[in-house]
Amino acid sequence: MADLFVTSPANQRLKDLVALRRRRTRELTGRTLIEGHEELAVALAAGVRPRTVYYCPDLFSPAGRAGVQDIGTQDALLDRLRCEGVELVRLSRPAFEKVAYREGADGILAETPMPTLSLDDLSAGRLSPHRQPERPAGLVLVCQGVEKPGNLGAMLRTADAAGVAAVIAADPVTDWGNPNVVRASKGTVFALDVVGADTPATIAWLRSQGFAIVVTTPDTDLRHTDADLRGRVAIVVGSEKHGVTAEFLAAADQRVAIPMGGRVNSLNVSVAAAVVLYEAVRQRES
Amino acid sequence: MADLFVTSPANQRLKDLVALRRRRTRELTGRTLIEGHEELAVALAAGVRPRTVYYCPDLFSPAGRAGVQDIGTQDALLDRLRCEGVELVRLSRPAFEKVAYREGADGILAETPMPTLSLDDLSAGRLSPHRQPERPAGLVLVCQGVEKPGNLGAMLRTADAAGVAAVIAADPVTDWGNPNVVRASKGTVFALDVVGADTPATIAWLRSQGFAIVVTTPDTDLRHTDADLRGRVAIVVGSEKHGVTAEFLAAADQRVAIPMGGRVNSLNVSVAAAVVLYEAVRQRES
Repeated sequence: MADLFVTSPANQRLKDLVALRRRRTRELTGRTLIEGHEELAVALAAGVRPRTVYYCPDLFSPAGRAGVQDIGTQDALLDRLRCEGVELVRLSRPAFEKVAYREGADGILAETPMPTLSLDDLSAGRLSPHRQPERPAGLVLVCQGVEKPGNLGAMLRTADAAGVAAVIAADPVTDWGNPNVVRASKGTVFALDVVGADTPATIAWLRSQGFAIVVTTPDTDLRHTDADLRGRVAIVVGSEKHGVTAEFLAAADQRVAIPMGGRVNSLNVSVAAAVVLYEAVRQRES
Repeated sequence: MADLFVTSPANQRLKDLVALRRRRTRELTGRTLIEGHEELAVALAAGVRPRTVYYCPDLFSPAGRAGVQDIGTQDALLDRLRCEGVELVRLSRPAFEKVAYREGADGILAETPMPTLSLDDLSAGRLSPHRQPERPAGLVLVCQGVEKPGNLGAMLRTADAAGVAAVIAADPVTDWGNPNVVRASKGTVFALDVVGADTPATIAWLRSQGFAIVVTTPDTDLRHTDADLRGRVAIVVGSEKHGVTAEFLAAADQRVAIPMGGRVNSLNVSVAAAVVLYEAVRQRES
């Protein structure tokens, strides 16, 4: 059976897709969007099953050096989805451009379930490396009150690379299903265990699971390289404007600072997270 | 004498400011824009003398936890500029909003000379720590072909914090005066020695100055933490899509990789630069 072909940008299905850019609609439907060939390939490899995949061959780009292993072509990806019974909808270029939310659209857009893990799910064993057997348990990233989707997404991408087991958004301002988080994460939001929870619940959970709480803050003399980041460790970074709250600082087992030698005494939050996470990786490997 | 007060968004001076968003206009005039109280404070501390500063008190925000030391109030900053003979122009809110180029405008916009250093300037001693006596010479960051202004700016902010002496854009796609680079750098583009040059000239210069060339690439087995990053070292990162060119790889004294344990086998370029730069800082301090 041929795929449904939608040519009119005024089609109601496209309007419903555009509506998923709003958080309220995502929460009501439990669905979000993944745009991009690479991003969808990462999510599929992590076990995501899309509800529908929209595609526009006119916009396909050569699958190049994508940063994703074994990505394959768009046609191979669509064939596989078709075999698995996923609904595919072909769009005309004007129709696709109506639903594309990023510059440089590449003709692939999927409607998928939102990430919906809770702290209880993590306790129930999801922290064990269920998706990537080689992923070491024991390293968790906590982002408290981070606002910008680009920063959250960048931290997920780094967390994925650094072998982080779970990422917890404490007092989340932005939901994990935000399409700009999905995009900046390169799809890794679906490959990691991501959770949202309030700060007291996050602290209680970390303690109950035996994690040492390592909070990054400029207000300490302990350099991140002098702290012990081995074992079960949760690395905590705070919001772009205000850093980590007093509540999380008070709960810290260690407070660490990244040395700053310049004019501006702070780093971008996703950069700070990367520097501390990779110091943890170094300590674990050496 | 009271400052000039412009109320009409149609004023020609404002049109000229908006034109500076175009690279061609920046190159013709040798001028660029710094928007933001923090960003301007950083540039002033680095010795930048603005041609004109535009301000709109209606948009001033409280000088909060800005990440910049001793930033002072907007009024104190304007008083100081007035004393130094810098032209100040007050704008109505509609007029300021016409020239503001970022979300959350805070009522400060400066027209300043572009950063214009060359490799010859660096050779002539500017690599010595002329602006910040405590800044260690010997660590240089090279960004080859990086396209996104946000990434270039983020790398400058990190380079400033990590105590990098100079940042060279090899085969630059984006000019250092791009207002989005200035913004993402938090003004540090004016606090660092930044240069643009083609790749052969960059390699020749690094060699003539005795720098070891350390290229980041996925295609090596040497982890960045196992490389020797002490002494005079240039750390090289490549473009978002293609990484470092074969030419720079061939010129490398060491090729290093950041270990990747996840689904996506690359990091954001500014994150990769930060991880390697802070490993260099660690090795120098330990």
